[in-house]
Amino acid sequence: MSFVKQFRCTVCNQAIEYKEDTMTCPFCGEKGILDIEYDYEAMKKFVDKNFFKHSDDFSMWRYYPMLPIDKKHASQMLKIGWTPLYHAKRLEKSLGISALYIKDEGVNPSASLKDRASGIAVLKALELGYHTVSCSSTGNAASSLACHAAHMGLKSVIFVPKRAPIGKLNQLLIYGANVISVDGDYKDTFQLSKLAIEHYGWYNRNAAINPNLVEGKKTVALEIAEQLNFNPTDWVCVSVGDGCTIAGVYKGFYDLYQLGLINKIPRLLGIQSTGCSPFVDAYITSKPLKEADENTIADSISVGIPRNPIKAQRAVLESNGAFLAVTDDHILKSMKKLGSKEGIFGEPAGVTALAGLEEALKNGVIKPNESVTIIMTGHGLKDPINAQKAVKAPVLLKPKLEDLKQYMKEKGDKKHA
Amino acid sequence: MSFVKQFRCTVCNQAIEYKEDTMTCPFCGEKGILDIEYDYEAMKKFVDKNFFKHSDDFSMWRYYPMLPIDKKHASQMLKIGWTPLYHAKRLEKSLGISALYIKDEGVNPSASLKDRASGIAVLKALELGYHTVSCSSTGNAASSLACHAAHMGLKSVIFVPKRAPIGKLNQLLIYGANVISVDGDYKDTFQLSKLAIEHYGWYNRNAAINPNLVEGKKTVALEIAEQLNFNPTDWVCVSVGDGCTIAGVYKGFYDLYQLGLINKIPRLLGIQSTGCSPFVDAYITSKPLKEADENTIADSISVGIPRNPIKAQRAVLESNGAFLAVTDDHILKSMKKLGSKEGIFGEPAGVTALAGLEEALKNGVIKPNESVTIIMTGHGLKDPINAQKAVKAPVLLKPKLEDLKQYMKEKGDKKHA
Repeated sequence: MSFVKQFRCTVCNQAIEYKEDTMTCPFCGEKGILDIEYDYEAMKKFVDKNFFKHSDDFSMWRYYPMLPIDKKHASQMLKIGWTPLYHAKRLEKSLGISALYIKDEGVNPSASLKDRASGIAVLKALELGYHTVSCSSTGNAASSLACHAAHMGLKSVIFVPKRAPIGKLNQLLIYGANVISVDGDYKDTFQLSKLAIEHYGWYNRNAAINPNLVEGKKTVALEIAEQLNFNPTDWVCVSVGDGCTIAGVYKGFYDLYQLGLINKIPRLLGIQSTGCSPFVDAYITSKPLKEADENTIADSISVGIPRNPIKAQRAVLESNGAFLAVTDDHILKSMKKLGSKEGIFGEPAGVTALAGLEEALKNGVIKPNESVTIIMTGHGLKDPINAQKAVKAPVLLKPKLEDLKQYMKEKGDKKHA
Repeated sequence: MSFVKQFRCTVCNQAIEYKEDTMTCPFCGEKGILDIEYDYEAMKKFVDKNFFKHSDDFSMWRYYPMLPIDKKHASQMLKIGWTPLYHAKRLEKSLGISALYIKDEGVNPSASLKDRASGIAVLKALELGYHTVSCSSTGNAASSLACHAAHMGLKSVIFVPKRAPIGKLNQLLIYGANVISVDGDYKDTFQLSKLAIEHYGWYNRNAAINPNLVEGKKTVALEIAEQLNFNPTDWVCVSVGDGCTIAGVYKGFYDLYQLGLINKIPRLLGIQSTGCSPFVDAYITSKPLKEADENTIADSISVGIPRNPIKAQRAVLESNGAFLAVTDDHILKSMKKLGSKEGIFGEPAGVTALAGLEEALKNGVIKPNESVTIIMTGHGLKDPINAQKAVKAPVLLKPKLEDLKQYMKEKGDKKHA
């Protein structure tokens, strides 16, 4: 069963017949990124609160009637989604806001939210009979694709810029991907993958291009809403690189709103690093999006030419949200804060949402009496080099109690003494 | 409600009254590690298949009536357990065995099975009014304790040997633990932590000493059994360091057997590295366990003086199982194999169970017609240095399609061309 009605081009706004392997608008070409539209009236009869109440599928596929997939192979996949949503009481108190939730996407199989998009890509590739899947990525999209392709017996060819951190590259190679490290930045990497995918006819998992992938990402919003009994928070904060994740978050809430399952779409705060902030620059200046430098430690959102500007900008505009930028230093501090206050260890792009929330509270974009969900997009173990920058090396002591007592005394930690 | 009946000392076999903060046998001292005994007849009336069928708690706390805890704080914890059990069809086929399942413990909050023991420790510490928890650990026990302590607002003091890999140290520090890096090996580290815990009166999370922790670890066996509809596999394979994990696995199956929920206890295969194999040496020579070198890349099981020899040896003996050792080289090959065949990325000690299964099939300890579960104990992202040893660096190409075509041609991969 599928409730997919048609595509609609985000550029020319024309409705386009839904075909499984259509990627972009036939009229607008590569810029014509497509939305998937559903028959909400038909979907409503099937998908209601009761449907979820009786579901025993605790993965992203519990939302299969809201996705453009044949769920035949879904049960054989690694478990993606239905990640925990934590009520972050200690952090909420320290920030002085009324309610704070954290969606922990680091516990997905390949340790990031990107598993949701890659899960859809791999299901689609299997459905359509492809043997090889491919993408370019700063890391998480790639490792998630390699992970799920491996589990389902597909080959993967992955294009990465040479700056990708060690943890992410290891993942790709361990998963048996054919990894092409590109001697250039993300733009060069994307371009080569595009040419190669066309040339070899592989299944394309580039998130901006493939309209199915945002549908996978939207499941994070569906879960947030359901986990809050369909009363989502006033704001949802998420870091922004390519723009596909925030677009997916918006689409999830949009679908639920169309189905009458939620009464409002949360305001979306899209956060970038000041070292790479094309969306923020365009938002502040009200000018078209321009290419930006890629100069941030948060490699997952270091995207100078976002491939999904329309959907991302629309997500913020239509949700009455905002874009803002935070410094890399603030990102590193947030890594330590999220870890030590809540026991959640995020990679730089994963904790950027917390830094953004703090910035938004400071400048009044978010009010203390509003409720907030932070999407923590990827596990901190993915980027040990930057995690090390966020902490001080531990003290090295000889194995003697006297030395320890001396250290504890010097530390002046009365509660320990 | 608690069905705890009493302690029983593993050395002198005496029954000892259950008190919340008793750690070891009052007659035998530190060597007198305690078992927790339950009133199975009373437990039976409460815990049956129906109980689990109607449980909506998808974490380790779904087994609360089988644990020595007050579950008051459990719902506020990070989500531990109810990790996926995958039917590993592709690996099963390549190994030529009748059925193979993989329990993926890498998706726990701090990315290892140790979360199960630390979860119990933190709950107990809260229950008993402690403010600080402490342990010594090669890494995973420590990072899991720091993680869950942080989330619940406890302080943690962690003793680590200086060789602990970067990913694990970062985790501790990010979680805000007070980390004491000990200039010595695991034995020195353990000894200092023992003295400090006594001196300062912190809650002791050293797994061998604290009898509650094996009860936490047993939940992995409870889940394996339940996920297989209470028909566990003929064998369960798990790597062995201190001995506490295999002891927990045995205890879980033992409890289920006492409750009549399973008909047999699976045979347990305990696997060590040839670089540190005190259990295997004792098993092969039928002599008492002796101190061994600590010379393996699998740092989580690099334990020269295991602190839980009795429970671990009993687990293998009473389950009619076996101990065996595999080389570090085999462990690295298994890391790549598990990743590329099943999309599961494990740290060295996590994939050691796969290497052990292969070894056991080779030497006839496990027969091809037997069914097997592998416990994958920790995520590969925890140890990027060793993961890198398991793979070849990717090719670096200029961003030109012609260069890529040349590379693909040289690679001779016809399916891609």
